[in-house]
Amino acid sequence: MNTLIVDIGTSSMRGILFTEQGERLASCQVLYEPVKYPDGRIEQAPGDFSGALREIASNTVDEAAKRNVSVDAVAVTAQRSSIIPVDRDGKPLMDTVMWQDRRNAGICMELEGKNDLIFERSGARINTVFSGSRMAWILRNCPKVCERLFKLVNIPEFVMHEMTGEYKTDVTYASRSHLMNLRTRQWDEEMLALFGVPGELLCEILEPGSVCGRVTRAFSEETGLPEGIPVITAGGDQQCAAVGQGAYQEGTLSLVAGTGGFLVTALDAVPERPDPQLIFNCSSVKGRYMVEANVLTCCSAFDWFGRNFYPLKEGKIDYGAINGELEELEGKVSSVLVLPYFQGRSTPDWNPGAKAHFGDISLASGRGELVKGLLEGIFLEIRNNILLFGDYAGIRKAYISGGLTNSKVINQIQADVYGITLYHMEDSESTAFGALMAALTGLGVYGTLDEAFSAVRGGSGMKCYEPQRELFAEYEKKRERMNEMYKKLYGI
Amino acid sequence: MNTLIVDIGTSSMRGILFTEQGERLASCQVLYEPVKYPDGRIEQAPGDFSGALREIASNTVDEAAKRNVSVDAVAVTAQRSSIIPVDRDGKPLMDTVMWQDRRNAGICMELEGKNDLIFERSGARINTVFSGSRMAWILRNCPKVCERLFKLVNIPEFVMHEMTGEYKTDVTYASRSHLMNLRTRQWDEEMLALFGVPGELLCEILEPGSVCGRVTRAFSEETGLPEGIPVITAGGDQQCAAVGQGAYQEGTLSLVAGTGGFLVTALDAVPERPDPQLIFNCSSVKGRYMVEANVLTCCSAFDWFGRNFYPLKEGKIDYGAINGELEELEGKVSSVLVLPYFQGRSTPDWNPGAKAHFGDISLASGRGELVKGLLEGIFLEIRNNILLFGDYAGIRKAYISGGLTNSKVINQIQADVYGITLYHMEDSESTAFGALMAALTGLGVYGTLDEAFSAVRGGSGMKCYEPQRELFAEYEKKRERMNEMYKKLYGI
Repeated sequence: MNTLIVDIGTSSMRGILFTEQGERLASCQVLYEPVKYPDGRIEQAPGDFSGALREIASNTVDEAAKRNVSVDAVAVTAQRSSIIPVDRDGKPLMDTVMWQDRRNAGICMELEGKNDLIFERSGARINTVFSGSRMAWILRNCPKVCERLFKLVNIPEFVMHEMTGEYKTDVTYASRSHLMNLRTRQWDEEMLALFGVPGELLCEILEPGSVCGRVTRAFSEETGLPEGIPVITAGGDQQCAAVGQGAYQEGTLSLVAGTGGFLVTALDAVPERPDPQLIFNCSSVKGRYMVEANVLTCCSAFDWFGRNFYPLKEGKIDYGAINGELEELEGKVSSVLVLPYFQGRSTPDWNPGAKAHFGDISLASGRGELVKGLLEGIFLEIRNNILLFGDYAGIRKAYISGGLTNSKVINQIQADVYGITLYHMEDSESTAFGALMAALTGLGVYGTLDEAFSAVRGGSGMKCYEPQRELFAEYEKKRERMNEMYKKLYGI
Repeated sequence: MNTLIVDIGTSSMRGILFTEQGERLASCQVLYEPVKYPDGRIEQAPGDFSGALREIASNTVDEAAKRNVSVDAVAVTAQRSSIIPVDRDGKPLMDTVMWQDRRNAGICMELEGKNDLIFERSGARINTVFSGSRMAWILRNCPKVCERLFKLVNIPEFVMHEMTGEYKTDVTYASRSHLMNLRTRQWDEEMLALFGVPGELLCEILEPGSVCGRVTRAFSEETGLPEGIPVITAGGDQQCAAVGQGAYQEGTLSLVAGTGGFLVTALDAVPERPDPQLIFNCSSVKGRYMVEANVLTCCSAFDWFGRNFYPLKEGKIDYGAINGELEELEGKVSSVLVLPYFQGRSTPDWNPGAKAHFGDISLASGRGELVKGLLEGIFLEIRNNILLFGDYAGIRKAYISGGLTNSKVINQIQADVYGITLYHMEDSESTAFGALMAALTGLGVYGTLDEAFSAVRGGSGMKCYEPQRELFAEYEKKRERMNEMYKKLYGI
């Protein structure tokens, strides 16, 4: 059973044909970019997605033929919350309004007064990233589009419709719209009314891992993909990445330390008293939930320091020099205390006006102590967020990935700050592996996610970092000092 | 009338023969260093001073002979508060206990309870730098020395005794002992009793610019210096430097931005309610006073930044690169807010536990903004101190000198932060010029200090920096924010 994973990202669409053991049979990537207009609009021609999909499908069919293997299923994972209005024939009526586009900010501001209700129903406070207000903007501002409007679809829904002729979505996308009731996992009439989005414009909601439809004769003729093979909705890209990173079990954290830091863990159910600082949405595991937190600057702050305060090496940040200075300080907590709010603070304690501070500096503080203090500040802030998760699911271990995890000495600092065991995983394929796991369990190839995980990711070498208990105790004290310093500077 | 200025510093003794117009006829420098012991004692053999004095005297006499000019007077300026116990013949009974030596810390702690009284009488709170507690330590701990003890002298007193056979001092040294009454300008019986120092062990107090005695036949025979020429006590080195830097008039600040920052201004009298955060002592101008404040890190903090965060150039701090980045930011107030307490805070608000903080940083803050923010922080702290002086003497202009004033772009930042006109003066000769001014007015060669100043320093090219009013207003707001941030972090 070979599955083609179609992974629709922001800067490319990728197709990877996997065996059910996670072996890669073929792959193909088509690059594209949304267009950023000077007025802040961010759009992309839907033809980009149609074209890329067809190129990937044809290419995979050709590669499979060469290798003499079959393509038995397609599973789609995608970026979330971009919107394309389509007519009855599935023709786009305008360019895709991308998830980064902020033209819906005014509508979000209008709805802020209803935040408690919105959060209670949808699991997230009002936010321009989510798609409900984006749909509302189109309905209010594009009368020509509305004349012929049949559905408002997200990119994966558009792409799956191209293959199957069906308009289906799943809970992972619907839970990023503010329009779905997080508990019933169906569109919420009150939210639809609040946002002014008629339910008939939306796709039917399935569970992730469900078959949305089958490849049509027309699409088969165009691309060579076998007619009738199932097309599965694997769930949103971040949800799939979390599952691909092992964060499908309660007590396991997926932590992507990229430009920003992104924390996800799995929940069996929506908590009785969810914390409105966090975002709750559906997991790509059938019937399950996840909770998200984020720190706004992570690798971006580290790179800022490296770029500004170390000589560049061949025009690039000299990570080797930084690691060397960090190695000299191994086993020591930096005396420099950093608040890492270079772009404001997110969770916990939303504060867009917060700034970064390097404190407790003396003439004896060297550059290495400052950069170590910065990393500690970033990780202590992540630890603040891990504790927030602790109210719902005690975190016992974490899978770490992202740009900031390429250094062993930095990973050890992370383990010491969090006080839990960390597994470092190459994350370039986490989304695709997560989608494959969702698809294969959805199709019944594996009975459980654990089976799927060990089949498709078991082979990948993971490095393990154990926390040093004494350092962890020191870091907990430093975290108290950090939170106290934050309170002094920004508290009431 | 040619005067030999003997300037006794911590790392050298220098002799410069000046005409009464400040023209240099001859000069000679003898290097030495105090010995630092591992237990914190800092001592120096009195023979260093005797030897250096004789070398300077002979050398000057030789040089004068070559140029066919006379040596008509000697004036001494010196480091303050080091102590040498001597016997009736003027023989040192032990090595000099230097001003940096802290063996008197215990005695200072004992006396802390009497701080209000000590400050009221002497103009300074208890402090290991001052010499009274150093004398007390010798009297308590050196019974062998006490057996033959005749006088407890400071280095200039020792040196002047070598030349004249007289034991004389002046108010500038006496006001750095805690033992002189700042108002009567004589030894204070109550202070002598409190410190346990009998008055007969001390030298007679004169006004600076006074003749202490005349060169003896013995010293003349040894060195060639004409017998009978007057030896003048010009006053302590810092006091002379302040006068040499023009800070002898009320409303004029002398600001030495060296390793630390040192602020002095002149006062006609001791204020009615002097601020115990400051140090009040006698000026090297007859009958006058001065007030001192200091910031602990100045050039040291700037160099710390340059050494840590800019690539070295031939092993040295690359000031050119720093100035280049500062020039790009000319006319802009840095968005980065720095508390410059790398070694604690001194005046105002004594707080040895304070640390440096770099705050309000975002990803858009470049290295230049951080270093400019640091300089602004140092200068805003100096401005806090200038305002403290304002209670006694409104500061209208300042003469700036020291390592941090070698850059035009940095001097302009200073002018903009202080909001007053700055005159930049090469300060390598400020102490010697100040001593010369004190000696020549004392001897009646000039009727006023203004006359002396324009005669000896008038020719030296001074660069003038005018404040930019709009920037000054912005800096005043920034200073409020800085003081607020300090209060948040360290306030009650």
